[in-house]
Amino acid sequence: MSVTFDVLRGNKEGKIVPAKTTRILQHNEVYVEVTHSGVCGTDEHYRWRDQVLGHEGIGIVRQVGQGVTNVKVGDRVGLAYIEEVCGHCQSCLTGWDQYCENKKEYGNHNFDVGTFAHGAVWNASCVFPIPDGIDSVDAAPLMCAGATVWTILSEYGVRPTDRVGILGIGGLGHLAIKLAAAVGSHVVVLSSSESKRQEAMDYGANEFHVFRSGQPLEGVKPLKYLLLCGSGKVDFESLIPLMAAQGSIFPLTVSHEPSSVLLLALLLKGIRIQGSLVSSRRSMHQLLQFCAAKNIKPTTMQFPLTIDGAEDAMQRLRDGKIRYRAVLVRESS
Amino acid sequence: MSVTFDVLRGNKEGKIVPAKTTRILQHNEVYVEVTHSGVCGTDEHYRWRDQVLGHEGIGIVRQVGQGVTNVKVGDRVGLAYIEEVCGHCQSCLTGWDQYCENKKEYGNHNFDVGTFAHGAVWNASCVFPIPDGIDSVDAAPLMCAGATVWTILSEYGVRPTDRVGILGIGGLGHLAIKLAAAVGSHVVVLSSSESKRQEAMDYGANEFHVFRSGQPLEGVKPLKYLLLCGSGKVDFESLIPLMAAQGSIFPLTVSHEPSSVLLLALLLKGIRIQGSLVSSRRSMHQLLQFCAAKNIKPTTMQFPLTIDGAEDAMQRLRDGKIRYRAVLVRESS
Repeated sequence: MSVTFDVLRGNKEGKIVPAKTTRILQHNEVYVEVTHSGVCGTDEHYRWRDQVLGHEGIGIVRQVGQGVTNVKVGDRVGLAYIEEVCGHCQSCLTGWDQYCENKKEYGNHNFDVGTFAHGAVWNASCVFPIPDGIDSVDAAPLMCAGATVWTILSEYGVRPTDRVGILGIGGLGHLAIKLAAAVGSHVVVLSSSESKRQEAMDYGANEFHVFRSGQPLEGVKPLKYLLLCGSGKVDFESLIPLMAAQGSIFPLTVSHEPSSVLLLALLLKGIRIQGSLVSSRRSMHQLLQFCAAKNIKPTTMQFPLTIDGAEDAMQRLRDGKIRYRAVLVRESS
Repeated sequence: MSVTFDVLRGNKEGKIVPAKTTRILQHNEVYVEVTHSGVCGTDEHYRWRDQVLGHEGIGIVRQVGQGVTNVKVGDRVGLAYIEEVCGHCQSCLTGWDQYCENKKEYGNHNFDVGTFAHGAVWNASCVFPIPDGIDSVDAAPLMCAGATVWTILSEYGVRPTDRVGILGIGGLGHLAIKLAAAVGSHVVVLSSSESKRQEAMDYGANEFHVFRSGQPLEGVKPLKYLLLCGSGKVDFESLIPLMAAQGSIFPLTVSHEPSSVLLLALLLKGIRIQGSLVSSRRSMHQLLQFCAAKNIKPTTMQFPLTIDGAEDAMQRLRDGKIRYRAVLVRESS
């Protein structure tokens, strides 16, 4: 069973280029016709490499390989990680399979599949049925942005009424506001300008404060959790004083620049800086059920799933003009 | 009830100077005749300030103020923090009173009491009876060094067989080895030279590796926990690769220099950097019981509780010649 599909790749010059991938379905693999793909800030990094872009895909299962039991042809599914997890290491056995110790690159062709594409061959274990109550365009951003913030809100002890800070309103941040409000947090939004105040409040924020790097903020009650959803350097010196004793700070966006932290400041208040990577499969299932049950949707802008559409979306993302997640949509869908 | 006692203070020139403190016992205060005081690396910072040094004291209760119920005249006790906790804030109510939100400086005379002294007036709530099985010289280092590492080992989910790394063998590190071994950890010691290998193994280490800042270490199985007990800058770039997925790094020593961390490296493995401050009162009681029951003792060097003794001990501490905790001992004791 060989299948060939159109894909969009990055390249060394940072241009998006068309290509085709041909694969033979292996054991426990499925072929999915992609209809939607979210555009993540991480794609901006991948754009400079020779690999297929996109990791927030929604599509329809068109073929299933041997041994596939969790989905069938015709199912609408989400495509998240492109790594296969082993299912038997300490991380997998404790429900944190995003840290699988035996993670495989997807087959030997990791870079030849992605969701900026008309199709993708994917390990069935990393394919998630989408509940009927969620439109595909709304489901796509849950696969990375949504799953990343949901993991923090559901797996690190956040309790109702806890003061949860969210720094930066973008793809991750706007979903963090909606999800944090829905789990009963007291949501405190920090944004670099007044312009997003109304939207933040509409999304469920309880407080909104203008915060700019290098400008310490005063008069905010201490935060138990703080999700760093902004881009750029992290100003720990200004942020740590905002934290409650034993508070937790979660850097969530990808930066290749080191940050400076005064460890003594962490000691005095018992603060933790906690790294967290997207989501376990369990957590992804929970998020989809939760969003369906509570009618939680990302705020999206749609672009065609073409080179021009992808270039346009990514340019606007660089310009800070996406409100708040770009989704590429296949025209026939 | 006024009481006057001899104390040793730091000053702006970093000299230790003699002084006297006079206090009137307030409600819930006790007067303790100090017989022993550990010398902590933090005293090196305090030496440059006009304040009484020392916070690892052991002594005998000589007077009790009104309302004291937990100790009586003649009891042998330990003196740890010099802050009074409120007992009713979120931190106190959840057993983490080291982060009391209403911490008071000790009366208005915080800087006039300490354990480099012949006496101290102390809040009775922060005074700990010493079990009979522990000698005073061995109890003193438990009040700060021991309590700091014990809090990590007992309050942050460390389980038997977990691989616990200990970087730096000094006052904290040598106690961390002994305590980690006693709670069933697989103890992995990282030290900058071979010279302490035998001692580390004698203290209960299972592995010993030479690790130098800036020189990545290979071939060590991943660590679930890492206690940073050394002095100097933290080389996160070399240390994070030593960690297991979802591992925890605990900076425990005081540095006023910021450290550089690549947050992306924390994300990819789900690593936390967790600040932690000495100990709760509950945890201090547990440590004392544990050390008595398991016959765990720090390795100490004794000096007279005099200016010369204190200067000598602190000079040797600066020279890296203490094996492994200096204790000042009052001559009449």
